[in-house]
This record gives sequence, C-alpha cells and structure tokens, in this order.
Amino acid sequence: MGSRNRAMTCLITRLFLVSTNIPSSLSIPPPSFHLPFITSSSSSNRRSFSNLGFGFSSFTTIRGFCSREIMSDKVASSLENLQISDSSSVTYLSAKEAAEIDEILMGPLGFSVDQLMELAGLSVATSIAEVYKPSEYSRVLVICGPGNNGGDGLVGARHLHHFGYRPYICYPKRTSKALYNGLVTQLESLSVPFLSLEDLPQDLSNDFDIVIDAMFGFSFHGTPRPPFDDLIQRLVSLHRYDHTHQRSAVIASVDIPSGWHVEEGDIGGEGIKPDMLISLTAPKLCAKKFCGPHHFLGGRFVPQPIAEKYRLNLPSYPGTSMCVRIGRKASTS
Amino acid sequence: MGSRNRAMTCLITRLFLVSTNIPSSLSIPPPSFHLPFITSSSSSNRRSFSNLGFGFSSFTTIRGFCSREIMSDKVASSLENLQISDSSSVTYLSAKEAAEIDEILMGPLGFSVDQLMELAGLSVATSIAEVYKPSEYSRVLVICGPGNNGGDGLVGARHLHHFGYRPYICYPKRTSKALYNGLVTQLESLSVPFLSLEDLPQDLSNDFDIVIDAMFGFSFHGTPRPPFDDLIQRLVSLHRYDHTHQRSAVIASVDIPSGWHVEEGDIGGEGIKPDMLISLTAPKLCAKKFCGPHHFLGGRFVPQPIAEKYRLNLPSYPGTSMCVRIGRKASTS
Repeated sequence: MGSRNRAMTCLITRLFLVSTNIPSSLSIPPPSFHLPFITSSSSSNRRSFSNLGFGFSSFTTIRGFCSREIMSDKVASSLENLQISDSSSVTYLSAKEAAEIDEILMGPLGFSVDQLMELAGLSVATSIAEVYKPSEYSRVLVICGPGNNGGDGLVGARHLHHFGYRPYICYPKRTSKALYNGLVTQLESLSVPFLSLEDLPQDLSNDFDIVIDAMFGFSFHGTPRPPFDDLIQRLVSLHRYDHTHQRSAVIASVDIPSGWHVEEGDIGGEGIKPDMLISLTAPKLCAKKFCGPHHFLGGRFVPQPIAEKYRLNLPSYPGTSMCVRIGRKASTS
Repeated sequence: MGSRNRAMTCLITRLFLVSTNIPSSLSIPPPSFHLPFITSSSSSNRRSFSNLGFGFSSFTTIRGFCSREIMSDKVASSLENLQISDSSSVTYLSAKEAAEIDEILMGPLGFSVDQLMELAGLSVATSIAEVYKPSEYSRVLVICGPGNNGGDGLVGARHLHHFGYRPYICYPKRTSKALYNGLVTQLESLSVPFLSLEDLPQDLSNDFDIVIDAMFGFSFHGTPRPPFDDLIQRLVSLHRYDHTHQRSAVIASVDIPSGWHVEEGDIGGEGIKPDMLISLTAPKLCAKKFCGPHHFLGGRFVPQPIAEKYRLNLPSYPGTSMCVRIGRKASTS
C-alpha cells in the first residue's frame, strides 16, 4: 500500500478510535470535528504508526489486558501471590522480537530511553521488595554492565535506597552518555557507594544479602569478557557456597541471567542460577529455563498495539503495582 | 572559596561518603583506592555539587527520611491511612524554593525532565487510585496546560489507563517539544481520546467522574488566559453544581490548584476548590489553604542533600508506594 494510502488508513483509524472512545453520554461530534486534532499530530508519528501495519483490529481495545479494577492493597497482594499464570501460557520473546519491541517503543510509540529505564528500574526494585524485606536483606550489591541492563540496575538501586535498602554499586565499565552520567550522579547524591573491582571481596556472601545481576540484557551475545567473566564466576560460586548449607547472598537477575544465551538459556549448565528473575516488558525465551523460586514481570507500559502485534499473553498487574509474579510462588521461598 | 578549594572540599567529602558507607564487615580500603572512582566523575558534576554548598553535615545520611522498612501491602496501606503528618509540621515551599529545587534536581543532581515527569505522573495516578476506585470513578478527564504541570497530567493519564481507568485528555495548548510530542503519541497508541474544546461539554459532571486539573504549576503567576480561564470556571462551577446536592465530578489538582496564587492560595475565594491535591516533591505554601479531604504527596525522589538544604519535613512513603497521604483522612471522604 502506498504511503499516501497508509497515511489515510491511519487517519481513518484514528477517527474511529477517537469516536468510539467518547463517553456514551457525550455527544459524538462529526469526524470533521476531530480532523484538526488528528492532523495536529506530527506526520512522522502518523507515518510510523501506519508503518507498523496496525489496522483497525490492532487498535480495538483489549480492556482485559490492562483494565484490572484497582482493589485494596491486601486483595491485590493476595491476588499477586495467587497469580497462576502458568509459565507455559505466558509469551516468551526471541532476541529479535525483544529488540523490535524496544525499537517500536522508542520510535513510533514515542517513549524516551529515560522513561523506559526509569519504569524498568522501578519494577526491579519493587519486585525485590515483594520478596526480600530490608529487615533481613538490607545490603544489596548491584553489578551493572555497560548497557541498558546496567542502567536498569542503576535506576533500581536508587529506588531500593528510597525503599530502605542499602545498595552498593559495582559499575566497572561506564558508559559516558548524559543519561548514564546522570544516573551515577543521582546515586552519589544519595551517598550510595560505588565499589571498584579491587574493593569487591572475592566472596560476596559475607558482605551482601542480595546481589543484583544487571550486567547483560537481551542484546548480549557471545562470551562475557573481563571483568564480567570473573564477576559472573563470583555469582556462580555463590551457589556452590550455598550448597555447603551456609547462608549465601541471593541473586536477582535483571531480564537475562548474565552469561545465559538469550534464547537457549544456561548452555552447559555452568552459569548463574538466580533465585529471582525479573523479566522486563515480556519474558525472553531463556526464562523458560529459569528454575528459581521467584519469577517476576516488570515494565508496566506495554501498549495494546504491541501486545496484539506480538500476541503477548502476560499476567495482569494487580492494583497499581509495577510488578507481577509469573507462575506460582515456589514453596522453597 | 575558590573553585580549586571547592573541588577539593567535594573530593574529600566524597571520599568520606564512600568510606563511611562500606558495610562494616567489608574492609575499608584507603582513600587512595577511591581516588580513581572519584575523579572519574565528570568535573562539571563535581563543581556543581560543591556549588550547592553541601558540606559533610549535608551529606550525613538521615536514614529516617527514606529508610522505612518494607511491610506488607496491608500494613503499609493501613499506615498510610493512619499517617498523622499534621499539616502544620510539614514543610511548605515558596515558589522560589520550588524552582530552585527543580533546578538542582535537573542540574547538579543529574535528573532529566523525562525521569522526573515520569515519576511525578506516576505519583498522580497512584494517589488517585488510593482514593477513587475505577469501579466507581472510571471516566477521568485530564485537563493539561502547556508546561510541566500538563506533562505530569499526560504521564498520569497513561498510568491511569494501565490501572484500569478510562482517561480523556483536553490539551488545548500543546508544547512542540520531543518529550511532549512523545507523551501525546504514547496516549494515542493506547487509544486515549483527545477532546478539543469544542468537544468538551459545558457541564463536565455528566460525562466524567474525575477531572484532573493539570493546567498550571508552581511557576505560574498572573491571571489565567484563554482558554484556561474558561476551563477553570468550568471546574469552579462543578462545585456550585455539587452544592445542589447532585452528583458532581471530583476535582484532583496536580501540585497547585490552577488559578491559585502559589503562595497565597485562592485569593478572593472564587477559585477551584479541589477534592484532592497531589503535591509534588514537597507542598507549596498555597497547600496550607487546601481544605479538601485528600492531600497526597508524590515525587519519591528527593535526595537527602536537598532534604537537608531546605530542611524538608515530609511524611515517609510507606512500602514501595509512590504516594503518601498528608494529614488525616478527612471523615468526609
């Protein structure tokens, strides 16, 4: 279909949307009324929308996807723990799909990386707070990689500080972008310590209650390079330590357990075995191999056109929560 | 003090910070260990920090400010409703102080407007959900002004959609910046209708359950101009309507009831009388004159140096909540 026709289809689609969403008791003005509003949107956005190939059906609202009635915190909490979104019924994304969704969110759907990272990091912090209370798990080491996964970790650490935890950051390969410099500055203003590799103890168990693995996300492929190869080994050894039945720090991985194949998981079986996995936007295929007790979903911002385009079947977020448990709460937790 | 000395003071301050925050069982490396990390921060940030005049005492952590233990949602909710942060004990900011804090947050403290607006809008949505459940109050009209207050409203509307409400936007004077265009696009992708002034009914009571006033914030002064003068009058008339004991839409104002003097409040007494006020970062002086049943605080991102510099006395946020009630829950609610 030509771009002219696509633009017209999108124009008509939006007229349809606006008119069908006017409250029943509100008189529906003729489409011509809405034309000025429609055309006031940037033409680039209009083109982008149409390029997504969203037709009428793509835009018809699936209220069920995100229209859960707000309920009392107690009920919401109970519902979350009862969440029986059997892992087999949940959608898992390939690396390619995950990258496409990010591109759509930050392209035609108009999100900035600042917004998405803020919401993702908040989801990481709220997921951890759902399971590990700061009275028992106050000392949190956040190991941040150089990319967006590391940025999610930096944001999560800030929110954990405000939630009453004592975060420490290990951020050995910094990204010199304004956003990342800002995230570091925000943490420094909260007196959150940044630990160099030399400061970090070989055995992390004595000094930290939680270790957040925010090294690599869904765009990572290949073999981890220094210093992350060694850092990953320190997390692997945490669980060997645990097998001697001594108390060990718990591991929470952000979106992807670092070192795992994004789709195949822990190839070889010698990788990190997180206690918690916080999937963002939607779980990636490797999450099918996650055997830990706590799998959460965060990133409560997926618009319905994306949910439809990728046929996402995801649990509903309870109340105003920024996270939701996937699958049953494991009895070991 | 010369810039060289200021830089040195800040350097020493940070060394102090880092070392005092190492976990007790973690061996504290000599300051020289931290020198590379400290100097790796951008010098502009270092200068900015020192320009704030934060000394050692400014940086000593007030854990009480944000170290509430995470508790069950039920307990957190109860505590919030029991919150007895007597309004007289809460800090109220002048317009000048509010502007200064924004400048510090987005300057030396490294926040982007995208981040702050996302968190502020989320606080608006969660505050509304604390009081007005979508089963009774589903139809929400968000009237957005041209500035940041309007942007907070646009973000809040998006989160309200995800919380299960049916938001409608009136945004008559758009700001053609990337961030604002993006916020509009995000709402359009959720099929949230934008209503023109012509579409808007004169009497808002029949068509909406909640009207969010996101027209003007703390930087507004003078007399509202068209079309906002008329929109404000429609909100004023909502309460006249209410006095006839017919059901009326409730009004929730974001940070400042539009048309009020930021410090003096509703001069003349003919202005908006909101049912809910959602103060952001800290209440402004006009909030002392707020007589509605629901006063909430949002913007859970205030770093302790700012809390100290402005001697902020604010209620603690419960659990992982993005909002907290100020004062007692009014019996009328």
